[in-house]
Amino acid sequence: MEERPYEALTVETLARRLGDLPALRDRIGDPAGWRVREVGDGNLNLVFIVEGDRGGLVVKQALPYVRLVGESWPLPLRRSFFEYHALRRQQARDPGSVPDVLHFDEGQALVVMEYLDGHIILRRALIAGTRHAGLGERLGLFCARTLFRGSDLHLPAAERKADLALFAGNVDLCAITEALVFTEPYFAAPMNRHTPGLDPIAAELRADAALKLAAQRLKTAFAARAETLLHGDLHTGSVMVRGDQVRIIDPEFAVYGPMGFDIGMLIANFLMAHCAQPGHGRDRADYQAWILSVIRAIWTSFAAEFARLWRTERTGMLFPRTLFEDQGQSWAADAACSGWLGQVWRDTLGFAGLECHRRILGLAHNADFESIADEGLRAACEAKALVLGRTLLLGQDDIAGIDALIDLARDIAERDWL
Amino acid sequence: MEERPYEALTVETLARRLGDLPALRDRIGDPAGWRVREVGDGNLNLVFIVEGDRGGLVVKQALPYVRLVGESWPLPLRRSFFEYHALRRQQARDPGSVPDVLHFDEGQALVVMEYLDGHIILRRALIAGTRHAGLGERLGLFCARTLFRGSDLHLPAAERKADLALFAGNVDLCAITEALVFTEPYFAAPMNRHTPGLDPIAAELRADAALKLAAQRLKTAFAARAETLLHGDLHTGSVMVRGDQVRIIDPEFAVYGPMGFDIGMLIANFLMAHCAQPGHGRDRADYQAWILSVIRAIWTSFAAEFARLWRTERTGMLFPRTLFEDQGQSWAADAACSGWLGQVWRDTLGFAGLECHRRILGLAHNADFESIADEGLRAACEAKALVLGRTLLLGQDDIAGIDALIDLARDIAERDWL
Repeated sequence: MEERPYEALTVETLARRLGDLPALRDRIGDPAGWRVREVGDGNLNLVFIVEGDRGGLVVKQALPYVRLVGESWPLPLRRSFFEYHALRRQQARDPGSVPDVLHFDEGQALVVMEYLDGHIILRRALIAGTRHAGLGERLGLFCARTLFRGSDLHLPAAERKADLALFAGNVDLCAITEALVFTEPYFAAPMNRHTPGLDPIAAELRADAALKLAAQRLKTAFAARAETLLHGDLHTGSVMVRGDQVRIIDPEFAVYGPMGFDIGMLIANFLMAHCAQPGHGRDRADYQAWILSVIRAIWTSFAAEFARLWRTERTGMLFPRTLFEDQGQSWAADAACSGWLGQVWRDTLGFAGLECHRRILGLAHNADFESIADEGLRAACEAKALVLGRTLLLGQDDIAGIDALIDLARDIAERDWL
Repeated sequence: MEERPYEALTVETLARRLGDLPALRDRIGDPAGWRVREVGDGNLNLVFIVEGDRGGLVVKQALPYVRLVGESWPLPLRRSFFEYHALRRQQARDPGSVPDVLHFDEGQALVVMEYLDGHIILRRALIAGTRHAGLGERLGLFCARTLFRGSDLHLPAAERKADLALFAGNVDLCAITEALVFTEPYFAAPMNRHTPGLDPIAAELRADAALKLAAQRLKTAFAARAETLLHGDLHTGSVMVRGDQVRIIDPEFAVYGPMGFDIGMLIANFLMAHCAQPGHGRDRADYQAWILSVIRAIWTSFAAEFARLWRTERTGMLFPRTLFEDQGQSWAADAACSGWLGQVWRDTLGFAGLECHRRILGLAHNADFESIADEGLRAACEAKALVLGRTLLLGQDDIAGIDALIDLARDIAERDWL
């Protein structure tokens, strides 16, 4: 199979084409009995769930174009290669955080993974209003471990440079982020769309030069500040949950970038879920408070684990112990950790602000808002997130910590902005 | 020759081994008449000047170890590959700024270049006390053009990412910079040395936690902030002059990094030349003033050319015209340019401070100071540069512009610090 030209799998061909692979056959049983369904609801790929006598697995295959848009927007299959390499590193850096990879075929651009039986996409859970114990803590740990352990704070410098070079090849998916997150939401780009009632606020944001400058400074940071290996697309559609179990999926946008990008995008998607709750039924006040508690837990657990790793796993070339701890200046190393986290916090606020805007004004929208049928209600919810996004982008230096962010999110969500 | 194993050239073997190459034979004439001498006085390589009937050329060959230290410090030959690729890009981005490359042999790790007849190393000129019209302006233009045109402000994103990945392979030379510039000067590393009279001030600097934190923040920026293709070793030993002609050489440390690294290192070497003048003879006050005028010209010419390129060649993905000029907001694009230059300035001050320290307390010293035979006088000159370096590192946010830097440099140089 390795040498055959690329061909997209179908429900009908999958068992015939993959049935001989021991990694699959040994795990789920005789291909003759496989039940295959295609469940991809993302923007880019085919996703099959394959169930056999002894269990199930997932086959994810890249398509040579953007599924959301169609064949008119070609997209290299090679993103599957980056997803595979990112999954391996995430599994090593935070064991149990991502699905096990069972097989990778570069030519067919497919990854075979553990099937997460009974898990649902977190975004769906946040719309349905279910709670998941320990969710924020687990996500914060994932961010701390993968972001710290992929950086020059931990890795040997040559290893980080090799990975920097490897993932710099992920050009096309980066180009999507660069255009859709940082630039297109801020002018009338052809593929943008938004709920009709938002015209005045969209026009106001697009005329706001200070906002656009902040967005471009963050784009500069995304493109040039190669701190660590990012997941690159860490929203609530890239998280699966089942009770208190959490798995992170879909790191095909992986690239070296600033730590705050992942955390900011993640927090932004919870902030949007918070703004969207009035659209999902009355009496969601308690659930909104729970969402805010998850955001708090993400940051506090990230910061605590990051500081622990700073003390115990700072084996890379930056802030070496030789200069600080070994000279009786542990306090200076601690101060450097605080300073580093302060920069991550400011970046987090900015990237979160961008994510709030692009999911409402750009091409790729969120089910959180899209599932609100009443356009007036949807616009009212989205307006809250747009105002919050602007406040985060322009308030990067002023929103002093997680408590201030929570207060701000609650305050903006309580008001009417249209 | 391509397939032969690597073998270091000698004065005796060069004509036999390279005599068949048309690029050389056609340019300088029959190899039977070649006169060859080895002139390498740098830290790393063999450098031959080859003269024939019709002219001369330079053959630079990497050695598999650090020449300054010896075979005990191996260093990959591959640095020659990076030097070649950097020279080609510099020649394209600022034509005439570097020697023409006539031939490159990757396996033999050698580059054949134009011979800069009558040129001398700028550092020697600064010790001798000769003036060169337009020197600072030319160096500022080189920095602006190479740094702007290698960045996401100008290049297509895919091209910058490909070059980022390519030069990320320059691991071993980066490791030298990372250790020798940012870390080893600030503790008692085995290869460090300094003039005896500097013991107290060296101890003071090495105990200064705020200084070491600033150095490590700059190391983080050097390692992670991949803004543009740097020369990577832009000191006055990497510049050749003849009258008003200027050429930049030796970019084998080339890597993607922050713009201020090149400018900071360059300015620091002029600042050290300024501090060293009292060691080269009486009555150098006018010459010192000239050195400061060159520093001023480097920055002002860099900033003016950078702003011109920002207006006329901003074709990359950052700060796109779509968001600013096309919306009637040119003033915002201008503001972004000022903001960018402000960041480059702060970085420049910091990297300049580091360079002043590592050339006096670390492994690789400067002829500016080393050529001062009187140890007491040398220490007095070096102490000025150490104090200046500390002031730059801790004053990154406070030294508001080039006039403030010039005043500071003059003030510190006028005092006695031992």
